[in-house]
Amino acid sequence: MAKALRLNPDRLFPANEQTRAIARRLYQSVAKLPILSPHGHTDPSWFAENLAFGNPAELLITPDHYVFRMLYSQGVALEDLGIPTQDGTPVETDPRKIWQIFAEHYYLFRGTPSRMWLDHVFVEVFGLDVALDGETAELYYSHIDAALKSDAFRPRALFERFNIELIATTESPLNDLRHHKAIVESGWKGRVITAFRPDNVLDPEFEGFHSNVAYLGELTDENTRTYAGYLSALRKRRAFFKDMGATSTDHGHPTASTSNLSDADAEALFNKIMAGAFSAAEAETFRGQMLTEMAAMSIEDGLVMQIHPGAFRNHNQQLFARWGRDKGADIPSQTEYVRALKPLLDKFGNHPDLNIILFTLDETNYSRELAPLAGHYPSLKLGPSWWFHDSPEGMRRFRQQVTETAGFYNTVGFNDDTRAFLSIPARHDVARRMDCSFLAELVSDHRLEEEEAFELAADLAYNFAKKAYKL
Amino acid sequence: MAKALRLNPDRLFPANEQTRAIARRLYQSVAKLPILSPHGHTDPSWFAENLAFGNPAELLITPDHYVFRMLYSQGVALEDLGIPTQDGTPVETDPRKIWQIFAEHYYLFRGTPSRMWLDHVFVEVFGLDVALDGETAELYYSHIDAALKSDAFRPRALFERFNIELIATTESPLNDLRHHKAIVESGWKGRVITAFRPDNVLDPEFEGFHSNVAYLGELTDENTRTYAGYLSALRKRRAFFKDMGATSTDHGHPTASTSNLSDADAEALFNKIMAGAFSAAEAETFRGQMLTEMAAMSIEDGLVMQIHPGAFRNHNQQLFARWGRDKGADIPSQTEYVRALKPLLDKFGNHPDLNIILFTLDETNYSRELAPLAGHYPSLKLGPSWWFHDSPEGMRRFRQQVTETAGFYNTVGFNDDTRAFLSIPARHDVARRMDCSFLAELVSDHRLEEEEAFELAADLAYNFAKKAYKL
Amino acid sequence: MAKALRLNPDRLFPANEQTRAIARRLYQSVAKLPILSPHGHTDPSWFAENLAFGNPAELLITPDHYVFRMLYSQGVALEDLGIPTQDGTPVETDPRKIWQIFAEHYYLFRGTPSRMWLDHVFVEVFGLDVALDGETAELYYSHIDAALKSDAFRPRALFERFNIELIATTESPLNDLRHHKAIVESGWKGRVITAFRPDNVLDPEFEGFHSNVAYLGELTDENTRTYAGYLSALRKRRAFFKDMGATSTDHGHPTASTSNLSDADAEALFNKIMAGAFSAAEAETFRGQMLTEMAAMSIEDGLVMQIHPGAFRNHNQQLFARWGRDKGADIPSQTEYVRALKPLLDKFGNHPDLNIILFTLDETNYSRELAPLAGHYPSLKLGPSWWFHDSPEGMRRFRQQVTETAGFYNTVGFNDDTRAFLSIPARHDVARRMDCSFLAELVSDHRLEEEEAFELAADLAYNFAKKAYKL
Repeated sequence: MAKALRLNPDRLFPANEQTRAIARRLYQSVAKLPILSPHGHTDPSWFAENLAFGNPAELLITPDHYVFRMLYSQGVALEDLGIPTQDGTPVETDPRKIWQIFAEHYYLFRGTPSRMWLDHVFVEVFGLDVALDGETAELYYSHIDAALKSDAFRPRALFERFNIELIATTESPLNDLRHHKAIVESGWKGRVITAFRPDNVLDPEFEGFHSNVAYLGELTDENTRTYAGYLSALRKRRAFFKDMGATSTDHGHPTASTSNLSDADAEALFNKIMAGAFSAAEAETFRGQMLTEMAAMSIEDGLVMQIHPGAFRNHNQQLFARWGRDKGADIPSQTEYVRALKPLLDKFGNHPDLNIILFTLDETNYSRELAPLAGHYPSLKLGPSWWFHDSPEGMRRFRQQVTETAGFYNTVGFNDDTRAFLSIPARHDVARRMDCSFLAELVSDHRLEEEEAFELAADLAYNFAKKAYKL
Repeated sequence: MAKALRLNPDRLFPANEQTRAIARRLYQSVAKLPILSPHGHTDPSWFAENLAFGNPAELLITPDHYVFRMLYSQGVALEDLGIPTQDGTPVETDPRKIWQIFAEHYYLFRGTPSRMWLDHVFVEVFGLDVALDGETAELYYSHIDAALKSDAFRPRALFERFNIELIATTESPLNDLRHHKAIVESGWKGRVITAFRPDNVLDPEFEGFHSNVAYLGELTDENTRTYAGYLSALRKRRAFFKDMGATSTDHGHPTASTSNLSDADAEALFNKIMAGAFSAAEAETFRGQMLTEMAAMSIEDGLVMQIHPGAFRNHNQQLFARWGRDKGADIPSQTEYVRALKPLLDKFGNHPDLNIILFTLDETNYSRELAPLAGHYPSLKLGPSWWFHDSPEGMRRFRQQVTETAGFYNTVGFNDDTRAFLSIPARHDVARRMDCSFLAELVSDHRLEEEEAFELAADLAYNFAKKAYKL
Repeated sequence: MAKALRLNPDRLFPANEQTRAIARRLYQSVAKLPILSPHGHTDPSWFAENLAFGNPAELLITPDHYVFRMLYSQGVALEDLGIPTQDGTPVETDPRKIWQIFAEHYYLFRGTPSRMWLDHVFVEVFGLDVALDGETAELYYSHIDAALKSDAFRPRALFERFNIELIATTESPLNDLRHHKAIVESGWKGRVITAFRPDNVLDPEFEGFHSNVAYLGELTDENTRTYAGYLSALRKRRAFFKDMGATSTDHGHPTASTSNLSDADAEALFNKIMAGAFSAAEAETFRGQMLTEMAAMSIEDGLVMQIHPGAFRNHNQQLFARWGRDKGADIPSQTEYVRALKPLLDKFGNHPDLNIILFTLDETNYSRELAPLAGHYPSLKLGPSWWFHDSPEGMRRFRQQVTETAGFYNTVGFNDDTRAFLSIPARHDVARRMDCSFLAELVSDHRLEEEEAFELAADLAYNFAKKAYKL
């Protein structure tokens, strides 16, 4: 017999009854606040075209590297999950078969946030009430597939049903933002904005860097073979993104390294990079210099600057060769901030118009480097627990290790950072529950008055993101 | 008056009454499962010869560096504890005097796992019911000494009483495994297997490396002056260990570094090493290359590969000069995995027949590097919290920092890694209690159904070790 | 209407009622023990001259970089807070205006230890019963200002009211200790001793190093242009400090690096340093050598040696240029101990007369390096959670990560390390509450008997500091 599936209304709250009651009260005050999603990776074409999603596997499995990485780690072949290859290796194409494999391995997610998010989607979005396993796979598939064919499950309808006030996608400077334009022109009231993510034209080691820079020149009518033209082209694309609604940039470098070269040295390095004969250290210096340049431009145009450093991308060489990027093989590595950010901060750290939001995959930095930096520099705030740490325990560690030194007010609320559109309400719900639980513990310990906790609960759920991202 | 000593049946369970009740139910379902001890350092001669243990001090103090290190840190001389020297310095030989010193300093272990393990041994193994201190020292000594003279306290009797299904010892390739052979031939049903630990013939900086390699050649009739002969000799010893029941190898390198040299480069490096003129960096490369070679052999012969990196061995120079290895002066140091393991993983990371169990002494890697690696690579699983972290708080951190990214199913249950035979049930009991407490908290938080928790409790206590170590 | 301000008697105790009751009992047994403050930065002139403190802003805001850093991080100008500049930039001089700004931003401290300490001061020292905010700012100012004018709020009266048994200040070898002398000669019974902090004559990169060393020579009638004279001068100043009551030295180096040079090499390096032509690496080696020399002198004269490594001082270049040192821009950085301390430990680590107290700003070292080192070397003990980690969560992490490997007895109780005199009782109170809560949890988990916890509560609150610092 199928097991029942329910979302307990007290999930993630502290076990102690008094503390749980406080958490419950706090949560009730923020549970229905609109969702602000100021950083993420949803596809703007969904909202522009508003077509029905394809099928359960295509929606929930094949694009979600959180999901298929876990199955892969336990011996399930990516071919069997229908993950499209780049070298022509054939893969499973029957979504029912893919779904069945997923369902049979769903127990692997026990204790993970993916399990919480997915169960939330099953119950809240699709109204399912039995647990997913091999036996209920077919029932799930049919139920979800039927739902996806109805108008109520089209992207815009879900956007509205999810009570999303604003969502930001992430695009490269080479993107023409046609979908964002289409959304605005359609008259639909959903706010879908972009964010400026220039890694592919700032990082000399990015695939296709040179042709990207050339294309950047074409798009902007600038000679990007010269440093001045290159900077000017970047400025123009930032302006274009800002016109299209962007309020932020985003930078996903391997480290947090910044540089502060003289104009002459920066230009010489650019020329060397463009000539294609540069070392790994020079690429690192150039990326760091460009972060400082981006900070300068942020001061000019007001775009908030997000820095997401520290991922070792595409760690699995064989997987990368067959499937390409973003296949669950990005691994965090040790990240240093104190020395790395100093060149940028020496130049701009005290500027009242600079707003940097720092993220980390290296939790050791929460209390050691990031909270002390954010608790001092007016230009720095801390993004929420990120990626692998976007999880109940990860969120708890973030608050426990950051708050005492940086306070709450040097943090920026939650962002989901996801391409899994349906999971967005679930992710915000987890964040709100964990933040309310943390606040409830402070109240229970008499470190905070309950009245203050109510104020902070709304700040963490909504107000901080609105302010920090200028939404 | 002596203080009472009792083991509270609820020890280590969460304080909250509802959560404690869940933990209690889970624990009751696994408390009596047989013990699998797939990695440890007990002496196989105990089980081969089945002689009575000598006396309380010789059994519980002098061989246990957990115990005497703490006393040493507080100013007790190792000479007074009877720790045998290598330079002829005389040491205390009266076990009653040694025991008295230990008893008088027993309070130092408050708050440590040693205290929990020892009290468990005192109560459960010896039936003592007063606390150990200077005043009860003599009572303890007499009681334990008398017990040790009885047949019920011989190694095999204790093995059976402890409900040990299997224990693995650890031997070097140069060991003739005579004790394991004797055990098998004796007809006794206790399963005592070995594990292949080749550090002394793979690490050019190991004491006696060159003579070890020469002896390896004699044992296998191979010319270990050549790289081909050396590899062939290793293959033969692995086969011999496997014939004698081994299911795993174990590698205790200073770092997790691996290499992936061409055959020609590997051979050239081997020749340089054998010529004795090599740098520290070359020794590191060679160790790393040998890890990759061991992985290749594991794929061939199916032995599970354990990696225990990151200890700075014999940190105390003066102590090492007088007492030699393993005297409580091994200190963990920062360990990197993401770059270190890449050469091996590039070659074999996706191979379905490779099974690597990774350990760490650097807890910062749990969430940052190890859980993401194990949550992706099919060849990797994570060993339990190790050595200094084999403790209630250490186990809690392990589960809290690993589970959300790697899940439970990329972990391998518990192993005790001890030479303190009598403490084995205590250690497994602590692990089972902590795992049940962790599961109970997930149930209490509504992150897991209680039914799932029962299944996982048995997996963590028994099934995972059985599968991961191929027992 | 103003919000009530109360200190809940159960603050910081665990939420679970049974565990909270244990914590309460433990706390009651230590709450009134005298305060030992063996390491801190109060100004000895306060106790020598016993003048009234100036005004609320001058007492509580402008000298406290914990406080103004948080306001600065949120955009409040240091000029508006009246922080005195070094370059002549004018700053606010009206303490009422400064206090008003502080009050309006007091909410920023929610969730931070500063908030707990300040509220404690407001209630316990000044008897205020409404919460501080913009509306109560004037009331606060008038109330505190009036109090400060009364004899009951002079330094010596507060010292006695705070039940301080002993306080240690920190002075450089160049200090004449006139205030300490005056205190002794005054006949007042309060014990105010000094600690020997020689960074400014040991660190070649310290501002004014060469003139400091010259002045050291003048003070001691030694030729500090020679290495022998330099060491001799240091010995003389240590003796002078010891005569004036000092029981410890303190060393605030950027890293924990130590060296063990031959006499000839040390002398050659000293000569190079004195000639002014040295590299950063040579400065590091020299600092490390001087730590080893200080250890040698500690063995001779019995002064306890504190090491506080790992701060990146004066990280904010622009702030440093205008305001100078100690303006809230000291940021912790990753710190290594295992290799760094080895040269010193190789020489003196087992010496029975050496007492080193190690601190860290890098919490990753608690369980990985520091607890294993302190749990082995008789010369090493661990200082409490320091600086940014002198906070409820920081203290909890310290105990959770240190105790299982080092035990309680290799730690040294609490020290407040503060220049904020009024906050000293608050800080000790937080430490006592957190330690009692930690002990209560061990009792609740049945890892410790309540009787043992009572003994340890007193040790942690009083006895350990008395013994470790030889007070």
